[in-house]
Amino acid sequence: MAFESKIRPITWENGVSKMLDQTVIPYEYKYVEISSGDEMFNAIRNMIVRGAPAIGIAGAQGIVLYAKEGANKFTNREEFINWLLEKADYMATSRPTAVNLMWACDEQKKVIKNSKSDINGLIEELTTKAIEIEQDDIDRCKKMGDYGAEVVPKGATILTHCNAGALATGGYGTALGVVRSAFAKDNTIQVFADETRPRQQGARLTTFELAMDGIPVTLITDGMCSYFMSKGMIDMVVVGADRIAANGDTANKIGTYTVAIAAKYHNIPFYVAAPLSTIDISIASGKEIPIEERNREEVTHINGKIICAESGVNIINPGFDVTPNELITGIITEKGIIRPDYKDSIKNLFMIR
Amino acid sequence: MAFESKIRPITWENGVSKMLDQTVIPYEYKYVEISSGDEMFNAIRNMIVRGAPAIGIAGAQGIVLYAKEGANKFTNREEFINWLLEKADYMATSRPTAVNLMWACDEQKKVIKNSKSDINGLIEELTTKAIEIEQDDIDRCKKMGDYGAEVVPKGATILTHCNAGALATGGYGTALGVVRSAFAKDNTIQVFADETRPRQQGARLTTFELAMDGIPVTLITDGMCSYFMSKGMIDMVVVGADRIAANGDTANKIGTYTVAIAAKYHNIPFYVAAPLSTIDISIASGKEIPIEERNREEVTHINGKIICAESGVNIINPGFDVTPNELITGIITEKGIIRPDYKDSIKNLFMIR
Repeated sequence: MAFESKIRPITWENGVSKMLDQTVIPYEYKYVEISSGDEMFNAIRNMIVRGAPAIGIAGAQGIVLYAKEGANKFTNREEFINWLLEKADYMATSRPTAVNLMWACDEQKKVIKNSKSDINGLIEELTTKAIEIEQDDIDRCKKMGDYGAEVVPKGATILTHCNAGALATGGYGTALGVVRSAFAKDNTIQVFADETRPRQQGARLTTFELAMDGIPVTLITDGMCSYFMSKGMIDMVVVGADRIAANGDTANKIGTYTVAIAAKYHNIPFYVAAPLSTIDISIASGKEIPIEERNREEVTHINGKIICAESGVNIINPGFDVTPNELITGIITEKGIIRPDYKDSIKNLFMIR
Repeated sequence: MAFESKIRPITWENGVSKMLDQTVIPYEYKYVEISSGDEMFNAIRNMIVRGAPAIGIAGAQGIVLYAKEGANKFTNREEFINWLLEKADYMATSRPTAVNLMWACDEQKKVIKNSKSDINGLIEELTTKAIEIEQDDIDRCKKMGDYGAEVVPKGATILTHCNAGALATGGYGTALGVVRSAFAKDNTIQVFADETRPRQQGARLTTFELAMDGIPVTLITDGMCSYFMSKGMIDMVVVGADRIAANGDTANKIGTYTVAIAAKYHNIPFYVAAPLSTIDISIASGKEIPIEERNREEVTHINGKIICAESGVNIINPGFDVTPNELITGIITEKGIIRPDYKDSIKNLFMIR
């Protein structure tokens, strides 16, 4: 049973990408138009669009934008294609951790390589693929939501970290897709949202989208999760993922791993919700997932104001951490819920795919 | 071996309390004068002075200030004393969790009850006691620091949460007293400081006082602790305490419990540093420690600006959590390090005291 969200973070309209600027939510709710490949690269890097599935969609659209620019530069089809394949590889580097971006860029590269059309025809095909990736994402999230809703207890309080919601996807959400589907069946469930420092996606985005959709939400600071778990106030944890290794180890926003350890200590189920495009079967374990290091100002400043001593303070700012498979109760995908032993269950899933 | 800190957060000068305003650090470094009992009550409640030992000192001084006001109201000694005992009880309620405040107010009540002097003589005695509590605190912290330094490995990276530093005490620190004593012996040690949302005492205060004293400090967000632990970058955790039950369960700033669980998961030693006045042998376990609920704006706003959706967001803001004794490697006191089983070791310590 699907819930209709009011939020569409990224769409393709009249040959440009229209996206909600997620850096200014909750202060402003405004769409920006991205009309060149380089603009898209920067929009991803600067997190105007963020969330693993959403940046996959954005990457696919960015390659369409590059293709349109290339059409003005090249008349020779082979030169055009070589240049565009390079741009597709470049787009895939705009952020390093979420594999959906690489997956979406690869999907577009397959279109480029397999196409028999002329330059304009190829642009058409890339556009179709970008729209398909966007549409498919919403469908996948709804399927994921339905599978996930089955493991949400009646009246549950669900803790989530960061934003794996409509804003992080085509418009329904992975972790929050599970919440939406569960809420459609049982409107007594509620969400606890971790603030998610340093970028505060939980405070800024998750409270915003849940409040907009009328789903009860309580904002807590990142350190509080164990307190509420010990009081019996959290029934389950559901988070998104940026990349899942072949053994189930899951990279997600920094702080997720801490929540997973706390959930284990309190025997609270900890679920990851992610489409199959998040699973990177090419890597054996989480140790191989590259972790993005972001700039020091994300930690030292909030809303432009410094929050620590001005000098003499060292900063290390990893954007993600890896939750080992032993802490994960199940991985909710559009094909069902994967359970341990993940190495086997993931292999089976990809063999029957 | 003691390290000299540059910071003195609270002193008694010319009949008034002079205290660093900790709500404006690191933006301003200014002393305020507190010259009435009610002003002191509000300074404690509004966290102009904070940290369990420091608010003990502040409470003792506040009772001196009330006594001076009472001397202008009453000529009858008995009426004066009854009024002052009520004010002492009231002062003890300015914050509910840290027991040092109650302990210090009790110490002043003993002075009042045992005094044979006239009103002015009693004010003298209360002043002497307040100064003694302040001086004793620094001595105790230095002893604690020396005991603690013995368990700090060479070149260790020490993670701490909140601020249990010079700013939280008479001027040396409990957890950061251990750091100072260890640094005096081995200047290759360093500190990782949790930001400590919502009030950011780690970011605002701990980085500030360590940078001022030239001790290397890295600021991290609260969710990051497990990431650095898993990378082998944290050798031990040392935190302060607001109240320790007879079984060793320890109330400290919200988020401490999460760090303790993460430390346990990674087999990293987790120490509490606190003077004996923090141990409340009247309560059997942490379940009986009252947890202060603070206002919603601490979570929803930073530096006066909202960080979440404007409406539709619920907040629960516990100021403290309780770390169960099973997660605590040792409690560093001015009389030595207490080890499990805490019920026995704490009882023995108080019997031989």
